[in-house]
Amino acid sequence: MTRAPCTQGRRRIGIWLIGIKGGVASATIVGLLALRKGLIAAGGLTSQLSEFAHLNLAAWESFVIGGHEIRGLSLCQEAYRVASEMRAASREAIDACRDELEKIETRIRPGTTYNAGATIASLTDIDVPQGETAAQIVARLSDDLRAFGQQEQLDHVIVVNVASTEPRSMISDLPNTWAELSARLHDANCPLPASSLYAIAALDTGCSYINFTPSLGAEPTAIDELARLRNTRHAGCDGKTGETLLKSVLAPMFAARNLAVMSWVGHNIFGNMDGRVLDDPANKKAKLASKDQLLGEILGYKPQTHISIEFIESLGDWKTAWDHIHFAGFMGTPMTLQFIWQGCDSVLAAPLVIDLIRFTELAQRRGQTGLMRFLASFFKSPLGVREHGFQQQFQMLQEWASETRSNTPSQNNSKQVTHEQTTTGRKT
Amino acid sequence: MTRAPCTQGRRRIGIWLIGIKGGVASATIVGLLALRKGLIAAGGLTSQLSEFAHLNLAAWESFVIGGHEIRGLSLCQEAYRVASEMRAASREAIDACRDELEKIETRIRPGTTYNAGATIASLTDIDVPQGETAAQIVARLSDDLRAFGQQEQLDHVIVVNVASTEPRSMISDLPNTWAELSARLHDANCPLPASSLYAIAALDTGCSYINFTPSLGAEPTAIDELARLRNTRHAGCDGKTGETLLKSVLAPMFAARNLAVMSWVGHNIFGNMDGRVLDDPANKKAKLASKDQLLGEILGYKPQTHISIEFIESLGDWKTAWDHIHFAGFMGTPMTLQFIWQGCDSVLAAPLVIDLIRFTELAQRRGQTGLMRFLASFFKSPLGVREHGFQQQFQMLQEWASETRSNTPSQNNSKQVTHEQTTTGRKT
Amino acid sequence: MTRAPCTQGRRRIGIWLIGIKGGVASATIVGLLALRKGLIAAGGLTSQLSEFAHLNLAAWESFVIGGHEIRGLSLCQEAYRVASEMRAASREAIDACRDELEKIETRIRPGTTYNAGATIASLTDIDVPQGETAAQIVARLSDDLRAFGQQEQLDHVIVVNVASTEPRSMISDLPNTWAELSARLHDANCPLPASSLYAIAALDTGCSYINFTPSLGAEPTAIDELARLRNTRHAGCDGKTGETLLKSVLAPMFAARNLAVMSWVGHNIFGNMDGRVLDDPANKKAKLASKDQLLGEILGYKPQTHISIEFIESLGDWKTAWDHIHFAGFMGTPMTLQFIWQGCDSVLAAPLVIDLIRFTELAQRRGQTGLMRFLASFFKSPLGVREHGFQQQFQMLQEWASETRSNTPSQNNSKQVTHEQTTTGRKT
Amino acid sequence: MTRAPCTQGRRRIGIWLIGIKGGVASATIVGLLALRKGLIAAGGLTSQLSEFAHLNLAAWESFVIGGHEIRGLSLCQEAYRVASEMRAASREAIDACRDELEKIETRIRPGTTYNAGATIASLTDIDVPQGETAAQIVARLSDDLRAFGQQEQLDHVIVVNVASTEPRSMISDLPNTWAELSARLHDANCPLPASSLYAIAALDTGCSYINFTPSLGAEPTAIDELARLRNTRHAGCDGKTGETLLKSVLAPMFAARNLAVMSWVGHNIFGNMDGRVLDDPANKKAKLASKDQLLGEILGYKPQTHISIEFIESLGDWKTAWDHIHFAGFMGTPMTLQFIWQGCDSVLAAPLVIDLIRFTELAQRRGQTGLMRFLASFFKSPLGVREHGFQQQFQMLQEWASETRSNTPSQNNSKQVTHEQTTTGRKT
Repeated sequence: MTRAPCTQGRRRIGIWLIGIKGGVASATIVGLLALRKGLIAAGGLTSQLSEFAHLNLAAWESFVIGGHEIRGLSLCQEAYRVASEMRAASREAIDACRDELEKIETRIRPGTTYNAGATIASLTDIDVPQGETAAQIVARLSDDLRAFGQQEQLDHVIVVNVASTEPRSMISDLPNTWAELSARLHDANCPLPASSLYAIAALDTGCSYINFTPSLGAEPTAIDELARLRNTRHAGCDGKTGETLLKSVLAPMFAARNLAVMSWVGHNIFGNMDGRVLDDPANKKAKLASKDQLLGEILGYKPQTHISIEFIESLGDWKTAWDHIHFAGFMGTPMTLQFIWQGCDSVLAAPLVIDLIRFTELAQRRGQTGLMRFLASFFKSPLGVREHGFQQQFQMLQEWASETRSNTPSQNNSKQVTHEQTTTGRKT
Repeated sequence: MTRAPCTQGRRRIGIWLIGIKGGVASATIVGLLALRKGLIAAGGLTSQLSEFAHLNLAAWESFVIGGHEIRGLSLCQEAYRVASEMRAASREAIDACRDELEKIETRIRPGTTYNAGATIASLTDIDVPQGETAAQIVARLSDDLRAFGQQEQLDHVIVVNVASTEPRSMISDLPNTWAELSARLHDANCPLPASSLYAIAALDTGCSYINFTPSLGAEPTAIDELARLRNTRHAGCDGKTGETLLKSVLAPMFAARNLAVMSWVGHNIFGNMDGRVLDDPANKKAKLASKDQLLGEILGYKPQTHISIEFIESLGDWKTAWDHIHFAGFMGTPMTLQFIWQGCDSVLAAPLVIDLIRFTELAQRRGQTGLMRFLASFFKSPLGVREHGFQQQFQMLQEWASETRSNTPSQNNSKQVTHEQTTTGRKT
Repeated sequence: MTRAPCTQGRRRIGIWLIGIKGGVASATIVGLLALRKGLIAAGGLTSQLSEFAHLNLAAWESFVIGGHEIRGLSLCQEAYRVASEMRAASREAIDACRDELEKIETRIRPGTTYNAGATIASLTDIDVPQGETAAQIVARLSDDLRAFGQQEQLDHVIVVNVASTEPRSMISDLPNTWAELSARLHDANCPLPASSLYAIAALDTGCSYINFTPSLGAEPTAIDELARLRNTRHAGCDGKTGETLLKSVLAPMFAARNLAVMSWVGHNIFGNMDGRVLDDPANKKAKLASKDQLLGEILGYKPQTHISIEFIESLGDWKTAWDHIHFAGFMGTPMTLQFIWQGCDSVLAAPLVIDLIRFTELAQRRGQTGLMRFLASFFKSPLGVREHGFQQQFQMLQEWASETRSNTPSQNNSKQVTHEQTTTGRKT
Repeated sequence: MTRAPCTQGRRRIGIWLIGIKGGVASATIVGLLALRKGLIAAGGLTSQLSEFAHLNLAAWESFVIGGHEIRGLSLCQEAYRVASEMRAASREAIDACRDELEKIETRIRPGTTYNAGATIASLTDIDVPQGETAAQIVARLSDDLRAFGQQEQLDHVIVVNVASTEPRSMISDLPNTWAELSARLHDANCPLPASSLYAIAALDTGCSYINFTPSLGAEPTAIDELARLRNTRHAGCDGKTGETLLKSVLAPMFAARNLAVMSWVGHNIFGNMDGRVLDDPANKKAKLASKDQLLGEILGYKPQTHISIEFIESLGDWKTAWDHIHFAGFMGTPMTLQFIWQGCDSVLAAPLVIDLIRFTELAQRRGQTGLMRFLASFFKSPLGVREHGFQQQFQMLQEWASETRSNTPSQNNSKQVTHEQTTTGRKT
C-alpha cells in the first residue's frame, strides 16, 4: 500500500477504521478534522508531548480517512451526536467539518459480522453480502483496502479496529502457521471471527493493523507470522482509556510499597453502543478478561477481584467507574482506597487512536515489522508484553523514541518503504 | 557512634526517635517488637520486597530504641492506644511487648521545643531545661546520643524526627557554612528551630539523621556540610504516606497522557495529635507547602490547587482524604477523577520509618555520606531531588540497590565505619 | 405462651432467634447483654428516643434468649468474632457476658432447612432430624417454643427470623385459608420453605413473629389468618439497615423536588455469611427484589435500576455500598448524586431487632393482633404497607406511639394477655 | 401594585429580580421563557407536582420580568453562557428567546451596593447613583418598582433577591419597630445592607419579597412589621438547593435511628460568580452560618462540623460537594456515610425561584400577609421556622396546599387584592 516517493514532500497516510460510524471512530474523525482546522488544541495526545517533538510524526494534513461499517446511520449525524451528547466538540466545529465528513462517508464500505456473535449481527441494517466463506470475506475486504490506497494515492494505510467487542473465540486449536491458517479460511466452519478477517485483509495487503478492542484480531500466531511475511506490523489489544489505565498506575504503587491488595472491585456503568453490546454476557466476558488480568501480573499474586460493566442508558458515552481497593497495611491493618472516574469514553479513546496511528506510521517509515511492543502503554492487554505497569510501559515508548533520535528517516524520505512495494496494491 | 567490630557477628543499631511517644513512633516501636517476636508479617515494608533481599538489610534483632520527648505520658499506654484506636496491633501483641516497652521508656530523655511554636510548646508536660541557648541545647542532646551509644554498645545510631510539624522558619538569611552557622548557635536569638538542633546534635556526633516531618531539620546548606564533614548522612523530608503518595503516582499519568489538569483539590480530615498541631495555621502552612509543590514539578505547569487539612476529632488516627481532579480531555472535554483514601496515618508511616532506617544503615556500612537522594520515594519533599514521580523515584532506589549488588559489605563487616571513629562517642 | 400475672412486677419476655449463631443474632445477643450490664450506651436504638420514653418499653432485664440453629459452632466463639472482626464490642465486654452466653447455648435447638435451597442446606453441620414432613417439622419447632416458655416461665415469646435468605418460593398457588394450608403441611411436597414453617410454629403457639429477612415467613395470606386466629401478631419483612434505608430517605426528596431519577445503580460488597449465601443466584434474587421495589413506589415511575450484591471476603461484616443516582434537573440538565455507605451489617441490624422486639412486646400487652403495619420503617418490604418513604413510615410509628399515650397498660399489668391463654402452651 | 380586575381573565404578575444578570436569574429567565414556548418540560418544579394541580398556580404566560443590577454585561450573552457552560438549555432554545430577552434587558434598572461589602462593590461596572442615603436609595428603588407595575399593567409584583451574598451585618442593635427603623434610614451611617433596602422598597410598595440568599433582607423584626402594615408578605432565606438539602434529608434519618453523628464535614467547590464573591471571607461567613445551623436543630446536639466553600474556577457553575458523616452505630461502632453531589448551581436554584414565585402569588390572592412559613422547605434558614427536616417542611407546604383546597380563589378572581389598593402604586 505504498506509492512512489512523494514529490510534493508530504506523505499521504490512509486511516481505515473498522466500525467507522461508532463512537470512538466518530470522535477520532471529528478530532482529526478539528485539529487540521485549528479548532481545538492538541491536549490529550501523547504524541504531542515535547519529548516526542523530534520524531516528526505525521501532520494532521497527512491523513485520509475511510472504513468498514455494518450500520447505515449517517456519519454526520453521529458527529453531531458526539458534539451534543458527549459535549466534546462544539456544534460550530462540526458545521465546519461537514464537507469532509460527507467525503469520508463516500469511502465507507460494508463490513462483516462473521462469527461476531448474535448481538453484533443484530445491529446490521445495511446490505452486507450473505453466505460468504471467510476466504471470500477476506478477499472482499482486501479489495476495499487496495481500492482505498489507489484511489487516494496513499503512501501507507493503517487499519484500526474500533468496532464492538466480539465474544472471545476459543483459539487453542488454531494452526500456528499462516500456510495452515490460510487454508482453513476456505472451510465452511472457519472459527476465526470478523476481527481476525479484517486483520488478515489488512496485513495481507501490506497495511499496518491496530486492534483497539479486546476482540481476537491479529493475536493468533499465524496472523503474526503473516505480518512478518508481508513486512508489515501490528499492535493490540484493547485501548487502555480509563479504569484499567488507573489500575496499571495504582497497582505498581501497592506493589512497590509491599501493601497486599486483599480485594479490588471495579464497577463500570455507561450507556453507549459499546455498553449495549457488552450487555450480552458473551461479549462482556471478553472485555472483563481484558480488564482483569493485569492485577495478577503487576502484583505477583491474585487478589480477589470483581469487575462489572453495566449498561445504564442515561449515562450515554459518559462512563463512571467506581473502584474499591481493600489492602492490608502494616501489621495487617485493613485500609481502603476508592476512586470514581467520570470520563467520556469515546473522547478518551480517540486521542489514543491518533497516537497509535502516528507512532505506527513512524514505525513503518523505519521499516519495523511484526509486533510493536513499544506501544504497550496504550493497551489493556498488550500483545507480547508482560509488563503491565503504566510508567514502565511508558518508558518503553520513551526508549523507542530516543533510539530513533539519531537515525529516524524524515517523513519525506520514503526509501524504507521499498520492501513493501511487492505486497501493496498500487504498483508504481 | 561506632564500636569495635562486632565479635558476635551481629551489629547493634540504635534507633533514636524524636517525639518517641507520638503516634508514628509508637506504631514503629510496636511494629518492630512484633516483627522481632514473629507476631506479625512484614507486609507494608518496601525493604522486605524480594528485589532487596540480596542487600542483607539489618534484622529486627539488630535494633535498640531510645528517644527524645517533651510529654510525660507512658509509652506503654500509647502503645495500647495504637492497639485499640488504630485497630492495628492486637492487645495480646502489646501484652507480649510490655517488658521491652518498659525498657525503652528508661531510655527516653527530655527534648526541646526551641523555636517550635506556641502550639508545640504548649504540649510540654515534663521538666525540660529552661533558658538554654541553642548551643547548650545541642550539647545536651548530643550528650544524650553519646550516652545512648555507649550504654547500649551500638555500632551506629540513626536519629529519626517523627515529632509534630513546626511552623516553617524563614531560612533565607542563614549562613551557608557550618563554621558560620555553628557560631550563630550561641546567639540569644538563633533562628534555628528544634528540628535543626536535633539534626545538628545527630550529625555532629556521627549519627545518621532522617527527617520524617516537614520541619526544617537538616535542610540548611550549612547542616548538610556538617554531615559531610562528619562523614555521616541524612535524608528528608516529610514521609510520603497517603494523599501525596497518590498524587505522585497519578500526576505522572496525566502528564504522560497529555491530559491538562485544570484543578486539583485535596481535603484531608483526621483527629490525631498531628492533626491537633496542624490545626494551628502556622504549623499547617508548613505541611500544606510540602503537600502542594510536587504537582507543578511533575506536570510542568501549575494547575489551580486547594489543599486543606482539618482536625476532626472523631476520626482519630484514621485519615480520610478526598481528592477531586478536574482535567481537560481531548477536544477540551472536562472530565473528573476523584479518590477517597482511608488509612491509619501512623500505621502508614511506621513501615516507611523502618524502611528508611534499614536502607540508611546499609548506606552507612557502604560509607555513603551527605544527602541520600536515593530515598526520594519515601518523602513528600525529597531534599536535593526534583523528580517527584513515584515510579521514577522508586527506580532510583532500585538502581541504588542493584549498584550495591556486587560490592555490598556484609552486616558483620564493619571496616567502612573506621572513618567515623574520630567523631563518635565511644572510642574503640 | 403466657403465664399468670407476674407477682414480682416484672414480665419475662422470651426472644427466640432463628439462626441464633449468625452475625445478626450474635450482635443482638452481645448488645442486649452489654446493655443489661451497662457496658454500652443505648445509641442506635430507636426505641430509646425520648419521644418513646412514655411507652415503658420492656427493660433489658426482661429478656430471656433461646433459638433454633443448623450449625454447630460455639455461640461464645461467634461473639468473640463479633468483638474482633466487627470491632463492635470489646473483648472485655464479651468476657463479662461469658456465663450468660453459655446459658443461652443450652437453649439452642436444631432447626430446619426444609425447602431452604441447596446453599443453606450445605451449611448444616449438626444432626437435624431427616425425612420429616412439613407438619412434623412444625410440630417439633412448636414443641421447642412451648418448652422454652415453660422452662423459663415466660409471659410471652417473640420469634425473630434472622437466618440466611432463602430462595424466593413461588407462592401464587398457595391456598388463602389456614384450614386449607394446614392440610397441605402433610403433603410430601409441601411448597412452604423453612421460614414459613418457623412462622407457623411461632404463631400457632401464640408467639409473636418477626421476619427480619426477605424469606417468605408469614407473608402468605393463610399464615396471616393464623396469626389473627391465635390472637397474636407478626411483622416483616427484611430489615432496612443500610443502602435501602438511604434509598427510602433520598427517593422522597427527588419526588418532592420533582427531579426525575433517570437511573439508580447500587453496588453492595461484603464478606460475611449472609454475603456467602447471597452469592447463590437463587438466594440473591430474593434479596435484590426486596431492595429494588421501593423506588418505583416512591417515585411513581420506574427509573432504570441496577443492584448488585457481591461477596468480597476481605470485607467481612463491613458492607460498603456505592450508589450512583443520575437525575434530570431543571431544563433536563443531567446531575449526579453518589453515596458510599460503610457500615457493619450485623451491628446495624442488631438494634433494629431489639427495637422490633420491644415495640412488639408493647403491641402484645395492648392486645393488637394481625399484621403490625406501624413497624414499616424497620423493613425494606413492609408487609401490608405501600408507603416506602422513611419519614412517612417513621411518622406511622410516632402516631402509633402517641395513640397509646393515654391508654397503654403498664408492663406489669398483664390483663390484656388473657385472651391468649387458650392458645398458649403452658396453662397457668 | 395591583390593578383593576382583569377583564381578559388572566392576571399579570411581575417578577422583579435583584441581581438579574447573575447565574440564578439567567437560568430562571431562560427557564421561564422556554417553559412558555414549550421548549422544555417542567421537571424540577415542585409546583408542578400533581398534588398541587388543584391550586391553579399562575401560568407561564402570566409573568413579566424586570430587575435591578449593578453590572453591565448583556442579559442575552449571560443566557448563552447558561446554555453552553452549564449545558442546561440548548443554543437553539436561547435563539428562540432572543426577542424576549432583549425586551427584559430594557426593564433593568441600576441597583445599589450600599453596605454590601467591598467585593460586591468591586463588581459594579455601570453608573450607579453615588452618595445617596439609605432613604434616598429606598425611594429610588421604590420608584423603579412602581414604574414597572404601571408600565406593564401588573396585578402584583414579586421581588426576589438572587444577588450575591453580602457579609452578614450585625443586627442586634436594630430597632424593632418600623417607625424607628424608617427614621434610621436617613442616618449617614444606617447599618442596613443593600438586601434590606431592596426588601423595604419592595414591601413598602406592596410587592411580595423573597430572599433567596443568606443576606439580611427582610429578616429584621421592623421589616417584618412593615410587611404586615402594608398587607404584603415575605419569605426567606437562602435557597436550599444542594448540599444543605441533603443535610436536611439525611440528618432526620440519623435522628430517627438514634445514630449519634460524631462529625459532619462538607466541602463545596465551584467556580461561578457566587463562588468568586464567597471567596471573600466576610461574605463566605454568612453562607457558612446558613449552611451549618440546621444540624444542631435537627439532631438535638451539636456534632463537630466543618464546612468549606472554595472557588475552583474550572468547575464554573457545576458545584461538587463532598460530605463525610462519621456516626456511632450500636455499641459505639464508628461507621461512615459519604456523598458526592454534582449539580449545576443555577439550574438547581432556578426552579425553586419559580416555585416560590408561584406559591407566593397564590398567597397574595388568598390575602395572606406577613411571613410565609409554609415555604420553609425551599430555604436553608427558613425565617420563623425551627423545623429543619426536609420532609417535615414539605408536609407544611402540603398542608398549606390542602387547606386551600376548598376556598382558593381562582387566578382570575382578584377580590382579595382590594386591601392592597391603598398601598400600591397604580390607583384603579
